[in-house]
Amino acid sequence: MNQAATTRFVEGGVTAAEGFEAAGAEGGIRYRNRPDVGIVRCVGRASAAAVFTKNRFVSPSIKANREHLAETGGYARAVVANAGNANACTGQPGLENAREMARATAQALGVPDAEVLVAATGVIGEPLPMEPLRHGIAEAARTLRRDGGDDFARAIMTTDTRPKVVAVETLIGGEPVRVGGCAKGAGMIAPNMGTMLAFLTTDAAVVPGLLTVLLRKAVARTFNRVTVDGDQSTNDSVFLLASGLSATIESHTESEERFAEALETVCRELSIRIARDGEGATKLIEVTVRGAKDEEDADRAARAIATSPLVKTAVYGNDANWGRILCALGYSGAEFDPDVVELWIEDLQLVKNGMRTDYREEDATALFHRDPLHIIADVHAGDGSATFWTCDLTEGYIRENATYRS
Amino acid sequence: MNQAATTRFVEGGVTAAEGFEAAGAEGGIRYRNRPDVGIVRCVGRASAAAVFTKNRFVSPSIKANREHLAETGGYARAVVANAGNANACTGQPGLENAREMARATAQALGVPDAEVLVAATGVIGEPLPMEPLRHGIAEAARTLRRDGGDDFARAIMTTDTRPKVVAVETLIGGEPVRVGGCAKGAGMIAPNMGTMLAFLTTDAAVVPGLLTVLLRKAVARTFNRVTVDGDQSTNDSVFLLASGLSATIESHTESEERFAEALETVCRELSIRIARDGEGATKLIEVTVRGAKDEEDADRAARAIATSPLVKTAVYGNDANWGRILCALGYSGAEFDPDVVELWIEDLQLVKNGMRTDYREEDATALFHRDPLHIIADVHAGDGSATFWTCDLTEGYIRENATYRS
Repeated sequence: MNQAATTRFVEGGVTAAEGFEAAGAEGGIRYRNRPDVGIVRCVGRASAAAVFTKNRFVSPSIKANREHLAETGGYARAVVANAGNANACTGQPGLENAREMARATAQALGVPDAEVLVAATGVIGEPLPMEPLRHGIAEAARTLRRDGGDDFARAIMTTDTRPKVVAVETLIGGEPVRVGGCAKGAGMIAPNMGTMLAFLTTDAAVVPGLLTVLLRKAVARTFNRVTVDGDQSTNDSVFLLASGLSATIESHTESEERFAEALETVCRELSIRIARDGEGATKLIEVTVRGAKDEEDADRAARAIATSPLVKTAVYGNDANWGRILCALGYSGAEFDPDVVELWIEDLQLVKNGMRTDYREEDATALFHRDPLHIIADVHAGDGSATFWTCDLTEGYIRENATYRS
Repeated sequence: MNQAATTRFVEGGVTAAEGFEAAGAEGGIRYRNRPDVGIVRCVGRASAAAVFTKNRFVSPSIKANREHLAETGGYARAVVANAGNANACTGQPGLENAREMARATAQALGVPDAEVLVAATGVIGEPLPMEPLRHGIAEAARTLRRDGGDDFARAIMTTDTRPKVVAVETLIGGEPVRVGGCAKGAGMIAPNMGTMLAFLTTDAAVVPGLLTVLLRKAVARTFNRVTVDGDQSTNDSVFLLASGLSATIESHTESEERFAEALETVCRELSIRIARDGEGATKLIEVTVRGAKDEEDADRAARAIATSPLVKTAVYGNDANWGRILCALGYSGAEFDPDVVELWIEDLQLVKNGMRTDYREEDATALFHRDPLHIIADVHAGDGSATFWTCDLTEGYIRENATYRS
């Protein structure tokens, strides 16, 4: 754990890594007076990896990406995104529009169509408004900047209250390597995939196959363990481009380990920010289940707690109602003996042997005011553990989703 | 379908059937100035069947019932229930208290301990307050009445806004047979078991084995298909007692068919009332998925739609946001081709071939004001179908659960 000595957080998001430019522009897709089209460009041909939603109503934009990645064998020059229209449930015309979105970007940048990946977020079932989109693409392509990471991060927001930007720098084989990115989240966030849009870049040199393996591993432990409302969208995607301008990463070496660590750190920090910025949220909740039969069971148990509306409203109400937490653990499907379960809020033990300890209610209530709030359960069935991130459930979530058409 | 000719709704709930008495009394378990202890008694020894929660933190009260039903081979004289304390996560002392609750009732009624079943609902993790409970039991036992069904129904309420009472009378082999009952629901209601407390009685003569088979079948299609917030409690139970004072029901005869139909009608009506009375609900939502690969897949798909907070808030906001419905269908895990999916709200088709039809937005919005609101999806993958009942998600749910300790 000498990571602290050499890994540090840096500015820049998707443009922290060498070889990347980015921009955001006002296309007028759905919003007014704010950027809603963004482009990230690599100065050369980047290795590219992506993880997409498992929703059966997958957006045609994702279909277009699969075609492009298959055609290039895992390389890309740019990613273009719009906020406002998800291009989902739009059939064959939607696929044509997604291809056209890539083509317009490719032309503006002077690169092959297949080397552009596309992302969309927003309302479902309406056709992509191509004219505003073309306008935004042209404008973004014209204003690409070496320090445009923050502009890009703002262009992909929907109901997010703030941009989510993270980057780290670490030393690999003596060379400084950057991994950075940004994400949009807010509602319709659930485990079991990218669960939102995230754009990651690095200047490490990684072949596409290894890049995909490392991205999948990081996503499984981070983006797939953040939940706002349990819903998984039609468009969830995580993209990772590697410019190759810094150290080379090779399988089964220390370089892989160091790179994986940096990548997971960025993914984890973005995941936490997504949960923290959940619609209507007032608190971040971190749920850790340990002592599970295996990691899969720990994942199942932590997910049930993090998804329970009763747990999330209790946290909102500062009510140390541990019965709801055990209840969720109990229906999670994880295997354990209820009579040995232990539960902590922060460092206060509320439950031992499946029953309440003699803690004082006012101590527990005081802890429930904390933000972030840590919930830790030990089910004493093995050595599997998993951590989920979520937020409390408030009237703000209801207000936002009863009126926002997403 | 000549059921209409012979089956009709009647008054009385758990006391509609011949051979039953019931009462509710003020024990002072947790509430003040309202009944919170209830007893249903059969004049003779009744065949008894029950379905219990699958939550791993099963209440000791349920453990006591399992002991009793094993001891009697499926017979009972009475069921006693308290509202206010769930007797869950209370360990061995909780089991002793559950047995004592049965024993006190058995003594008051002059029947063997094992012929009393117990039910509890309310706060988790606190010991049953035995003195108020004994007081309530004595009082209820003393005031049992032939028409006490409504009193019993009020005694089992927690955050319910109204009692839920249903009974039907049908003719079987020329004899009038009654099936009736009541339920409590409100929050922490989810599929995958009884998901609340329900007490059913009948004057049909049914052996315990067949009674259990018929109850399980009815529960699977009714109580297991109602969801308020996706949470499944530690105490969910459905009880069914048969006094045997009317027609005899035999396997594989028309009598079984008629009885099963009456039982499912009562369970369905109670399920609908539970959903309608979900915490903070303003509307009942009925979700039907048809054309699924099989009934299991239809169940999975309808459950995902009925559980989605985004769907439930859209209904609350009268927003005909069908994208959220398709999205939930897409991540449900059900197998189908998204390009052939059809969706209706009431009789207005919103989606055909996975894309929006040319309906007028104002027509769809007008329909979303309906209560109940019917959502029907056809996924054209087979002939499986399933209907779920749920309610909209409102600020009222948040308010109630951020402060109520359940």
